[in-house]
Amino acid sequence: MKIMVTGGAGYIGSHTVLELLNAGHEVVVMDNLANSSEESLHRVAELTGKEAKFHKVDLLDAEGMKDLFVEEKPEAVIHFAGLKAVGESASMPLWYYRTNVTGTLNLLAAMEAADCKSIVFSSSATVYGEPEEMPLTEKINMDAQSCYGRTKEHIEDILRDLGASDSSWNIALLRYFNPVGAHESGRIGEDPSGIPNNLVPFIAQVAVGRREFLSVFGNDYPTVDGTGVRDYIHVVDLADGHLKALDFIAKNGGLHTWNLGTGNGYSVLEVLHAFEEACGKELPYKIVERRPGDVAVSYADPSSALADLGWSAQRDIKTMVRDHWNWQKSNPNGYEA
Amino acid sequence: MKIMVTGGAGYIGSHTVLELLNAGHEVVVMDNLANSSEESLHRVAELTGKEAKFHKVDLLDAEGMKDLFVEEKPEAVIHFAGLKAVGESASMPLWYYRTNVTGTLNLLAAMEAADCKSIVFSSSATVYGEPEEMPLTEKINMDAQSCYGRTKEHIEDILRDLGASDSSWNIALLRYFNPVGAHESGRIGEDPSGIPNNLVPFIAQVAVGRREFLSVFGNDYPTVDGTGVRDYIHVVDLADGHLKALDFIAKNGGLHTWNLGTGNGYSVLEVLHAFEEACGKELPYKIVERRPGDVAVSYADPSSALADLGWSAQRDIKTMVRDHWNWQKSNPNGYEA
Repeated sequence: MKIMVTGGAGYIGSHTVLELLNAGHEVVVMDNLANSSEESLHRVAELTGKEAKFHKVDLLDAEGMKDLFVEEKPEAVIHFAGLKAVGESASMPLWYYRTNVTGTLNLLAAMEAADCKSIVFSSSATVYGEPEEMPLTEKINMDAQSCYGRTKEHIEDILRDLGASDSSWNIALLRYFNPVGAHESGRIGEDPSGIPNNLVPFIAQVAVGRREFLSVFGNDYPTVDGTGVRDYIHVVDLADGHLKALDFIAKNGGLHTWNLGTGNGYSVLEVLHAFEEACGKELPYKIVERRPGDVAVSYADPSSALADLGWSAQRDIKTMVRDHWNWQKSNPNGYEA
Repeated sequence: MKIMVTGGAGYIGSHTVLELLNAGHEVVVMDNLANSSEESLHRVAELTGKEAKFHKVDLLDAEGMKDLFVEEKPEAVIHFAGLKAVGESASMPLWYYRTNVTGTLNLLAAMEAADCKSIVFSSSATVYGEPEEMPLTEKINMDAQSCYGRTKEHIEDILRDLGASDSSWNIALLRYFNPVGAHESGRIGEDPSGIPNNLVPFIAQVAVGRREFLSVFGNDYPTVDGTGVRDYIHVVDLADGHLKALDFIAKNGGLHTWNLGTGNGYSVLEVLHAFEEACGKELPYKIVERRPGDVAVSYADPSSALADLGWSAQRDIKTMVRDHWNWQKSNPNGYEA
């Protein structure tokens, strides 16, 4: 298949592009490079011996996207592009809604104009909000607790309404838990610009000396050690889930929602200690205030993805932090030369 | 105050412009005239002896709106513009999200650029969805059952996130119940293009012979006579609520949500019979299938608006249908010559 990957130069995007190329798909990447580097795609080319075509286009450039879709005629889209920092979203809501929601509406219009009607969308477990019941199943009502989460919720609403209005659309909503790790080669990985907003990249930057200490946002949650518990998933497992979801909707049509997580939860301090073991040193941390919009505990029921897609996460937390460390230590400044 | 009214040539818009002018405000109307006529504003000028300035600008023209706001420098916005047909929204979701949500994001960007940070937004009781408890209070979680309703829900989310991020915004979310009636002069009123999507304008067109019969969407709801029960509110009461809400946020700041309804519910057949009495003839109707997204019963708890704004609806259902009929019989083809 010929597949357009928005945000394909980013963290999850680049790992997915790699798996798509290895599986024999033709890949076109569309990315504005706001929080990513084209270098990731050069390395994907090195690793696979195949090239993804690259276009620097922004989701807010509605006309540019239309032209691109008419020119490239992709058969399907995997839509990663978007803003993703919970804290930032609380202070800049209009920017988040515009980029994520209006951006996706522009993308869907471009797809429709080019008669490309298959999309795999990067949703997030954050749409679940703070339900009492765990694990999280796809049946739980959405109730995001942050602006970022609400942008994901809104896009899901849009795609559900679109699917209900026109059965020729094939739609997969993938609710990611917390992607960590890197390709086992250590050549591609997460390279956030500025201060990392996610736990493991922050720990990794502490481990290479780019940050002094880890800020742990709250240790008074009702969890094993008071720190927030999350379901972490290896980015290569996550990438694999996208390929399986795309295959499924291409064959079966319709709209489907799948959790992509391991089903296991680890606390911030448990992840920190696992990383310390992987890198062989103690890593300093400080307890600071909770972040607005964060919930105490969140882990997936990944059984739908297993049942429908035959997919389950293959890599455990040790592998995740080992691979993340492997990437970070050989690329202490990410993709920067 | 100098007030920009989006959708100000429309049904609720024109009645609100009239009340604003009578109250001594300076009014600028922005409308794309997609479902409204500039004639309404000429008649408002006749009735008030004052002119609202008119600009034909679309919500999707982000640059045009920015220029307009910089040029006009309004102090506040009353935002009516948007698409509003439940059935149509189910078949054209992308158009609805783009117009209503992206349109509002464009408006907010234009407001921010001109440092205009007070907005009264036309939300809808449809955001409540289908809760068991009646009457509907503002505390009930949103759970819209239609794409149209979700566009209102999304805009409310955006405005709440905006208000939380920046306390210099003054925001009123007005959840309308079902506006009917017309100005008592009979010179302005509801003039839907095409087939009316709301009950009373449809009945009114049957009464003047423009439609053969009323389609009643379902008579198997669990209500007094099987037809859907709604809280109808006179459009002049509704317009008055906007002025009071605007005064309140200008004085007190913050974000506030108020139901605007009477607190009384009437069934479709009860409204039909009230209209028959007003126009003095029997009106034919047929029972047809339920519309997707419609709920059985919906009526307001309007006590918050009374407590905060000193507002309550003054006009009963007889006055509503009398005034609606008065408008329709003297303008059988609406604003068309």
